Amino acid sequence: MKVLILGGDGYLGWPTAMYLSKKGHDVAVLDNYIKRFWESQAEVEPLTPVNNLNKRIKIWENLTQNKIKLFLGDISENSRFLNNTISDFKPEAIIHYAEQPSAPFSMISQHNCIETQRNNVLGTLNLIFAIQRNNPDIHIIKLGTMGEYGTPNIDIEEGWLKINHNGRSDKVLYPKRPPSFYHLSKVHDSANLEFVCRSWDFRVTDLNQGIVYGIETDETIIDDRLCTSFHYDQYFGTVLNRFIVQAYLGIPLTVYGKGGQTRGMLNIKDTLKCVEIALNNPASKGEFRVFNQFTEQFTVLELAKKVKKACIMIGKEVDIGLYPNPRKELDNHYFNAKHSALVDLGLEPEYLNEDFIIKMINTVSKYSERIDPSIIEPTHFWNNKSAR
Amino acid sequence: MKVLILGGDGYLGWPTAMYLSKKGHDVAVLDNYIKRFWESQAEVEPLTPVNNLNKRIKIWENLTQNKIKLFLGDISENSRFLNNTISDFKPEAIIHYAEQPSAPFSMISQHNCIETQRNNVLGTLNLIFAIQRNNPDIHIIKLGTMGEYGTPNIDIEEGWLKINHNGRSDKVLYPKRPPSFYHLSKVHDSANLEFVCRSWDFRVTDLNQGIVYGIETDETIIDDRLCTSFHYDQYFGTVLNRFIVQAYLGIPLTVYGKGGQTRGMLNIKDTLKCVEIALNNPASKGEFRVFNQFTEQFTVLELAKKVKKACIMIGKEVDIGLYPNPRKELDNHYFNAKHSALVDLGLEPEYLNEDFIIKMINTVSKYSERIDPSIIEPTHFWNNKSAR
Repeated sequence: MKVLILGGDGYLGWPTAMYLSKKGHDVAVLDNYIKRFWESQAEVEPLTPVNNLNKRIKIWENLTQNKIKLFLGDISENSRFLNNTISDFKPEAIIHYAEQPSAPFSMISQHNCIETQRNNVLGTLNLIFAIQRNNPDIHIIKLGTMGEYGTPNIDIEEGWLKINHNGRSDKVLYPKRPPSFYHLSKVHDSANLEFVCRSWDFRVTDLNQGIVYGIETDETIIDDRLCTSFHYDQYFGTVLNRFIVQAYLGIPLTVYGKGGQTRGMLNIKDTLKCVEIALNNPASKGEFRVFNQFTEQFTVLELAKKVKKACIMIGKEVDIGLYPNPRKELDNHYFNAKHSALVDLGLEPEYLNEDFIIKMINTVSKYSERIDPSIIEPTHFWNNKSAR
Repeated sequence: MKVLILGGDGYLGWPTAMYLSKKGHDVAVLDNYIKRFWESQAEVEPLTPVNNLNKRIKIWENLTQNKIKLFLGDISENSRFLNNTISDFKPEAIIHYAEQPSAPFSMISQHNCIETQRNNVLGTLNLIFAIQRNNPDIHIIKLGTMGEYGTPNIDIEEGWLKINHNGRSDKVLYPKRPPSFYHLSKVHDSANLEFVCRSWDFRVTDLNQGIVYGIETDETIIDDRLCTSFHYDQYFGTVLNRFIVQAYLGIPLTVYGKGGQTRGMLNIKDTLKCVEIALNNPASKGEFRVFNQFTEQFTVLELAKKVKKACIMIGKEVDIGLYPNPRKELDNHYFNAKHSALVDLGLEPEYLNEDFIIKMINTVSKYSERIDPSIIEPTHFWNNKSAR
């Protein structure tokens, strides 16, 4: 299948490109490297040295004889470029990762908030119009996040909810309670996309993804130069990825508050499998389909304890830190999120265990010289008291 | 009270400014005249000759001895200007009309869609940050629309909905089904505003307003030079306002489809009273309060019949036209929207009757030389078939 990956330079974009390329798909990646600019603005760098896309694509081709096409440009400002890309490459599906991906980054300042919603919302709108112009049959696979739901006191369904109210019923988009300007941008995107399914017969799969962890995929391990952009800082690092680097350094794990926050999570390898399942089972015309894309749920404290236990197994001592929560979120809450749709379509998850954590710590150790301990501790508070 | 009105040049903004000024409030208006630019782009003009704000403010002051302050500038691009305005004027409440207000305009093209969501969403975000910086206690009164809800098969509550699901319950933002990129921009705004109530203790009243009709208020009639911007074209004209001009011209009323679309409506004078009620009864700190701001509901066909009946009373013959619907909307649907909160706070509505319609036709006749019949018929189709 001809697949265009927007945001092909990122943590998930690049591994997805290789994975689908190896499976025989005709893959193109698009990026404008703005995430690297955002990293500079936040004064952080990935743990891994990440070659530019041209270099990685050449290495990939040399090693596997699989070609990946490259389109360099901006989708949020340069709609003509996006339009030309789609009209040249003629994708059957577009996987849309091309968004500012960090909640804390979106909360740093007015500029960061505006930049996040501008980039994400207007980029997705440009995508909608480029598809409308070229081929409304293209299947959009859009990355959203479980975080959009917040922590409602009722079960979280997969995107849609049947409501009975005053003796009548309807099926509605699941009402979300996003906890940051980043999460809000994703909610806006979903609303815009649902509208074009309903009004213009688009086909969209919205993947409300849990928190991804992991540093390696079956493709990145072929050659170190194919590694993906792995973050451990307060802005772009996801919780388990951060814990692993902290464990390696032997510093207390950054549990915010009491760590009672429950979140859905998944291995980066499962992200690739989920996206592939969505690709092979496209949404119908006019369908706005939502999958809750995670495999297990943990509290942050449970996760920290799992890391601590894995460390004990290798004779490493690590404490669980007690950090004031920089976010406004409930520490203790109900959380029961459905996530059966992808399993029903064949997903076989990789579950988290201590062996995996130990393997990750070993991988991280290869890059020990690149670790900057100063970017780990949360310094930016975005709950009520500190936001001003 | 010190009240800042964003979008003070508009159909509702200017009458609100005079109304509150006459009631003794210290009023400032802000605008960038971009709506006039949008009118030029759509090649339409208001029926009424509208003086610039400086002129109208001087006339108002000469006639009533009430001063209105003026701030000219853009809130969506020039956040420093907005910030300075708020820090200079120190409003206790801000009434936010400063948005692209037309659904069909937002659906003309990619440019119009992007411009609508950029202006509305980023403008409101800049407002949020200007308030956060200056005084988070400022009460935001934000104009939304009943159209955001779409036409759900269940009762429409005022913004929030209690849900029972699998034996548990929660109170959630009412799930909306917006029918245009314009309506979507309002939904995004509401989500952003609800977030800052929840996270930063803002106080917001979101007015989901029905379709406004009427050309005069108690203040505009003081002097013709104080009239407001009244539209009858396919983009900026609201349904009854359009019918009135059509009736005056004796051309068939532009009922789209079968006219079974039911909508909440209100007199422009009631808009002013509703905004005043919200102003005098501010939302609490941390409260995202939603009022459904309309007084009566009609189908479009019922409205056309009312106009026809009024015309018969004055010996005027007018047909009800049958126009293919340029929109994607249900012709026959359930519609039961609660709207008791404003009445509970003291609203005494002006109901629509034939006398009012006859009076409006007479007012319109004063401007007969300015009517351009070519801008009345819907030429821009934005449902599925024609959107491409």
